[in-house]
Amino acid sequence: MKRLLVTGAAGGLGKAMRGRLKSVADTLRLSDIVDLGDGQPHEELFTCDLGDRDQVFRLVEGCDGIVHLGGISVEDKFSKIMNANILGLYNLYEAARANGMPRIVFASSNHTIGFYQQNEYLNGDVPFRPDGLYGVSKCFGEALAHMYHDKFGQETALVRIGSCMEKPTNHRMLSTWMSRNDFLSMIECIFRVPRLGCPVIWGCSNNDAKWWDNAHVSYLGWKPKDNAEQFRAELDATVPRPAPEDPIAIYQGGPFVRDPIFKED
Amino acid sequence: MKRLLVTGAAGGLGKAMRGRLKSVADTLRLSDIVDLGDGQPHEELFTCDLGDRDQVFRLVEGCDGIVHLGGISVEDKFSKIMNANILGLYNLYEAARANGMPRIVFASSNHTIGFYQQNEYLNGDVPFRPDGLYGVSKCFGEALAHMYHDKFGQETALVRIGSCMEKPTNHRMLSTWMSRNDFLSMIECIFRVPRLGCPVIWGCSNNDAKWWDNAHVSYLGWKPKDNAEQFRAELDATVPRPAPEDPIAIYQGGPFVRDPIFKED
Amino acid sequence: MKRLLVTGAAGGLGKAMRGRLKSVADTLRLSDIVDLGDGQPHEELFTCDLGDRDQVFRLVEGCDGIVHLGGISVEDKFSKIMNANILGLYNLYEAARANGMPRIVFASSNHTIGFYQQNEYLNGDVPFRPDGLYGVSKCFGEALAHMYHDKFGQETALVRIGSCMEKPTNHRMLSTWMSRNDFLSMIECIFRVPRLGCPVIWGCSNNDAKWWDNAHVSYLGWKPKDNAEQFRAELDATVPRPAPEDPIAIYQGGPFVRDPIFKED
Amino acid sequence: MKRLLVTGAAGGLGKAMRGRLKSVADTLRLSDIVDLGDGQPHEELFTCDLGDRDQVFRLVEGCDGIVHLGGISVEDKFSKIMNANILGLYNLYEAARANGMPRIVFASSNHTIGFYQQNEYLNGDVPFRPDGLYGVSKCFGEALAHMYHDKFGQETALVRIGSCMEKPTNHRMLSTWMSRNDFLSMIECIFRVPRLGCPVIWGCSNNDAKWWDNAHVSYLGWKPKDNAEQFRAELDATVPRPAPEDPIAIYQGGPFVRDPIFKED
Amino acid sequence: MKRLLVTGAAGGLGKAMRGRLKSVADTLRLSDIVDLGDGQPHEELFTCDLGDRDQVFRLVEGCDGIVHLGGISVEDKFSKIMNANILGLYNLYEAARANGMPRIVFASSNHTIGFYQQNEYLNGDVPFRPDGLYGVSKCFGEALAHMYHDKFGQETALVRIGSCMEKPTNHRMLSTWMSRNDFLSMIECIFRVPRLGCPVIWGCSNNDAKWWDNAHVSYLGWKPKDNAEQFRAELDATVPRPAPEDPIAIYQGGPFVRDPIFKED
Amino acid sequence: MKRLLVTGAAGGLGKAMRGRLKSVADTLRLSDIVDLGDGQPHEELFTCDLGDRDQVFRLVEGCDGIVHLGGISVEDKFSKIMNANILGLYNLYEAARANGMPRIVFASSNHTIGFYQQNEYLNGDVPFRPDGLYGVSKCFGEALAHMYHDKFGQETALVRIGSCMEKPTNHRMLSTWMSRNDFLSMIECIFRVPRLGCPVIWGCSNNDAKWWDNAHVSYLGWKPKDNAEQFRAELDATVPRPAPEDPIAIYQGGPFVRDPIFKED
Repeated sequence: MKRLLVTGAAGGLGKAMRGRLKSVADTLRLSDIVDLGDGQPHEELFTCDLGDRDQVFRLVEGCDGIVHLGGISVEDKFSKIMNANILGLYNLYEAARANGMPRIVFASSNHTIGFYQQNEYLNGDVPFRPDGLYGVSKCFGEALAHMYHDKFGQETALVRIGSCMEKPTNHRMLSTWMSRNDFLSMIECIFRVPRLGCPVIWGCSNNDAKWWDNAHVSYLGWKPKDNAEQFRAELDATVPRPAPEDPIAIYQGGPFVRDPIFKED
Repeated sequence: MKRLLVTGAAGGLGKAMRGRLKSVADTLRLSDIVDLGDGQPHEELFTCDLGDRDQVFRLVEGCDGIVHLGGISVEDKFSKIMNANILGLYNLYEAARANGMPRIVFASSNHTIGFYQQNEYLNGDVPFRPDGLYGVSKCFGEALAHMYHDKFGQETALVRIGSCMEKPTNHRMLSTWMSRNDFLSMIECIFRVPRLGCPVIWGCSNNDAKWWDNAHVSYLGWKPKDNAEQFRAELDATVPRPAPEDPIAIYQGGPFVRDPIFKED
Repeated sequence: MKRLLVTGAAGGLGKAMRGRLKSVADTLRLSDIVDLGDGQPHEELFTCDLGDRDQVFRLVEGCDGIVHLGGISVEDKFSKIMNANILGLYNLYEAARANGMPRIVFASSNHTIGFYQQNEYLNGDVPFRPDGLYGVSKCFGEALAHMYHDKFGQETALVRIGSCMEKPTNHRMLSTWMSRNDFLSMIECIFRVPRLGCPVIWGCSNNDAKWWDNAHVSYLGWKPKDNAEQFRAELDATVPRPAPEDPIAIYQGGPFVRDPIFKED
Repeated sequence: MKRLLVTGAAGGLGKAMRGRLKSVADTLRLSDIVDLGDGQPHEELFTCDLGDRDQVFRLVEGCDGIVHLGGISVEDKFSKIMNANILGLYNLYEAARANGMPRIVFASSNHTIGFYQQNEYLNGDVPFRPDGLYGVSKCFGEALAHMYHDKFGQETALVRIGSCMEKPTNHRMLSTWMSRNDFLSMIECIFRVPRLGCPVIWGCSNNDAKWWDNAHVSYLGWKPKDNAEQFRAELDATVPRPAPEDPIAIYQGGPFVRDPIFKED
Repeated sequence: MKRLLVTGAAGGLGKAMRGRLKSVADTLRLSDIVDLGDGQPHEELFTCDLGDRDQVFRLVEGCDGIVHLGGISVEDKFSKIMNANILGLYNLYEAARANGMPRIVFASSNHTIGFYQQNEYLNGDVPFRPDGLYGVSKCFGEALAHMYHDKFGQETALVRIGSCMEKPTNHRMLSTWMSRNDFLSMIECIFRVPRLGCPVIWGCSNNDAKWWDNAHVSYLGWKPKDNAEQFRAELDATVPRPAPEDPIAIYQGGPFVRDPIFKED
Repeated sequence: MKRLLVTGAAGGLGKAMRGRLKSVADTLRLSDIVDLGDGQPHEELFTCDLGDRDQVFRLVEGCDGIVHLGGISVEDKFSKIMNANILGLYNLYEAARANGMPRIVFASSNHTIGFYQQNEYLNGDVPFRPDGLYGVSKCFGEALAHMYHDKFGQETALVRIGSCMEKPTNHRMLSTWMSRNDFLSMIECIFRVPRLGCPVIWGCSNNDAKWWDNAHVSYLGWKPKDNAEQFRAELDATVPRPAPEDPIAIYQGGPFVRDPIFKED
């Protein structure tokens, strides 16, 4: 690939992938609404408010692929979520449509299905059960992607990321954790397959304690190699096990299920 | 019921239901962004922009039930859809939450699944396949309703209306048509059942040529009585049968599937 | 049929069926642990404790078919349930096996699945979710019947009776009611079909508000003719509608779900 | 329709449909390998061996639709079945492909699934379980039709006919019977729908005792009106009920399951 | 865990687990109806007839968890099975309810589904098909556990043990074998997970030749490590391969399917 | 096994298996319509036209097992396919029936389902979607095998071979490839299991990029050991990646979907 756009590149996940994605494309175009620091020779840095159509169109122009990590990634006020995750996503898809429809990796979320319980084993077809406004905005995003696929042929990988962090930091993440290297190899598979379509992909590593079934995307050939289980002893030693009535022990979305609706100012 | 709010009461469907819903509540509170004409003694008329939070809160106050027909009901510019169907719906659910969570009948749409083909028989659990921005906004609405149900207990009937008109006006509507009397009896069932939950209900009459299976909401006891088939001869006499390659003959969403993305001004 | 055994013939349902079943067999052998009143010429009356093996063997001898309504039919002490519904059922199947394996209509119960919610639509294959010791004893009975079928070829209709009464007496029964005439016609179909097997049959009339799907036993040709809906107005006028948090409005098993475990003396 | 080809028009079913199909097309082209008797003004009579490619090409030329009842319709020697039902069907599809791909109603058979038991309720997706060489040839036919649909767009209705006779003549037919008027109305629906695709349609009337679920072809709007149940009393009076171990009481394919493989001369 | 109750500790499986379970709790309370031999310092020995309510209540008092291996574990007279496995289980659950509802590992059995054939691949939701009175008693047990879970919140792991032995002793066990170390690690997972619920768990090792799918309990994080395949050569050398018509080659329950009903004395 | 018949032994796959199968039986009877070269001491060589009944009967006589690789294995004229794959298969099954019904490994094909897309994950029960006349002939073969199983008890493994070659030669084969050693171990499992039945087995190795689910035949204990992924780098270096609109990138059957119907001479 010549030029890969990575949005949200200054966020936690963005920073972690910025270096790793170097191998995927000659040039990385990085964007965020906040400062991206110094660029490398193979990097192009853009400041961009996803809610601003013109900025987004300029951002997408000339890219062969998009890893869309941008937008709000936790529960927040609806006005902010609507600007970044709803209007912003619409802008992104319109910009992609105007620019040859580069394949998109869309960072969707387990919070689209956060109200399922942890003892339910989910395939990629289960109805949405979002656990907050953030999760609802990701449901919007998946629906939008499906529509652009059915109507125009735009391909998107709908990656329902669990917890893509350096390592699990609580017991729930023994199930939801995806290592960044596994995310990288997933992205490589997504851009490698001749026909992608618009599949849901559960974003977790090869964890022993699993809630999600990726059999339906076996055609990608993605084989995650890491396993959160290796961190269990460390977690047991440092973090109290959740009580049985704690949302972190009941719901797939964990503590998000008890987040309130955030007040506008 | 003492007071039932009907939004979108000046629209095509709203006008048709305004009279019929009289039997359901002592008082009908009617709202629209356009003029509602003269009120009857049992009616309260409100002009309301659904995108205006304060107006919506005043609108919902004191109501025991809501039939939400308001918002944009065809393909349109995203800015308009976002204001009325996304921000507007969020406002409505926040207002309901602040006012005792009256049960909501949400006019969702077959355009949430418009890209399924007509020879596919759908239950209430199929993944979304919206056919345009309007359909995507209704997917958002259904996801939002699920979240308010799971998080707060707010009950909503997600009515995926086919074509609720006086009578079918093209051959596709032989499958999608719902008579207004059948819609009325559905609303009565929705408000009658002790526990509603948050079910998807396919909004069509007892048509011979059926695409949608309502078995999962049998508990409501709703038995539509009309059948679009009675209009087939009339249609055959007045409307050309669609060609096999016409979207109206292929997709459940009919012509919406070929609507373009509307340009902002 | 020459001789049909009806157990539990002095119970509420037994009394109601005693007259109706006259048409099904030349002779009705009626049994109960309590007094059966005066017999008709076509009737043979037996007092029988189902827990007494010898009595049960004598009871079954010479019968061509069995309608097993006997045993405990509400929540009770486990010792009583165990004697009548567990030991009693074992005795009945052993007696049947010793006597040519006459076909059995087993009065199972909706209380085998009483913890499903009313907005769940059940087929005949759903896992058990009994709502009390009575329901558990009926699960035992269904399992026992399956085993005698698989091992010996004994055929049984596992009729999960809803509410087989003269008419519905509360709002839950608008879904669970089975008229006695519909039960009679079901029994006729069960004895008429050349091969019965060991199917679950949901015991309800053709009610508008339905929770149970009998499609899998369509081969029986049973078409219930009554509909609890005809009693709705009368119920609305005489019985308060259940509150949304009342088990009668939530669970298929209704008030049984909150029954305690009965204390032994 | 201008010209409808009906093959097998001198067979039992062909004769019965010959008059009824008059209403469907201006001209009926009738073919059989045996004599078709005298023609009517709206009829064109062809003698045709389906195994003869040139004859079949001439037969199909100029037709707008095909009702293919021809070929062997009971168990027979493989050489005869191969010529008429395998080579013959290939010839028919090649002829259709060369002549504008007129829509085809293919008389498939319940003998494609005859080894399912009568207490199994089948949808249109169940794997084949043919009960003889005849049934196997119909499986071939359905597979061939699917291939021509996927590859070339040829549309076929795969009608798995039960027993299309004047009336049921044994107890099994209380489930398998399809009245000829219901078959006619099915054919009308098949030619009426703008897009047919290549669906399996179970060919039975609206019988009380049902084994087959046509929900997946609801889009056709076909509503069979007859019911074999009306003949039960007459059957009970004239035909002995099958014994429980008789194939007629066990298997959907009835006595075909015990047919031997026919010897070649 | 402070104190773990292990019932049936003098049985074959009990003896094998007695040592292994030492690591799971500070104190092991061991019970059986027969002699338990000498105790270790961390052991408390109880003689207990499960059919005796008072004994069972005393047994359960003060325990934090229960591994219930007790009762009859092969086909036997119904009177014995009823006392130990039906009355005994009721007593155990009542005792647990009176003592803070410690989590229970219930040794259910593959004989609850023994009449499924070996080429059927089962998930945890399949209907029961018990192969004898013993299997029926385990169906009772599973139903009882579900009821206590739904009604009171009592958690149970319903472990359908295949063959938990030192090593497989016939060819059927190449599929049903569970090593005792794998059973131990399963028990550890059961007591470790914050919320257990009331799941069915298939009790077999990671055997190549598998009949049972544990995907639905992936959330436990249990990964069996042993594989019966390592014993195939040894079995082939020492045990004749079963004939194709031998129940051991046909049914999942193996020879149990041909056990008679045991006579009472 | 004493004598194993391998048909098609001079074909590409036949040659590759000829040596490997030596370990499975004392004697290999090898047949083909073309020259088989020189025989080994443990080999019996037969020239045989599968369409010739007498030759086939002689061929099968005295064999304990059959690996049927013979017939046409690519798209061809229907006359040739009909002779070898339809008449030939009928002859083979008749010959087997006359000779004690030795177990058959039938080389079916992925071309029975070639029109499914590559992002569909298939189990063994999906309806056929053949991609040409060759694929249709294999559907016939599977249906025939099912019939002989249901009617006479003849056992067959329906192996839907992907690409059984030395190594993958294009990118599609990264999913469809089955190593010959994996095929050998599959055949060993097929002849080893006491009861085979008539299962569909997907014929591919343990490839990362998988379209087919063999969970339903886990009872065979077959664990393929090879993985096409090891050849990806080599393929990327030597073969251009398919374009997204190339059938090789879309359909499971790859280029077969665009094969024409071959003209007869």
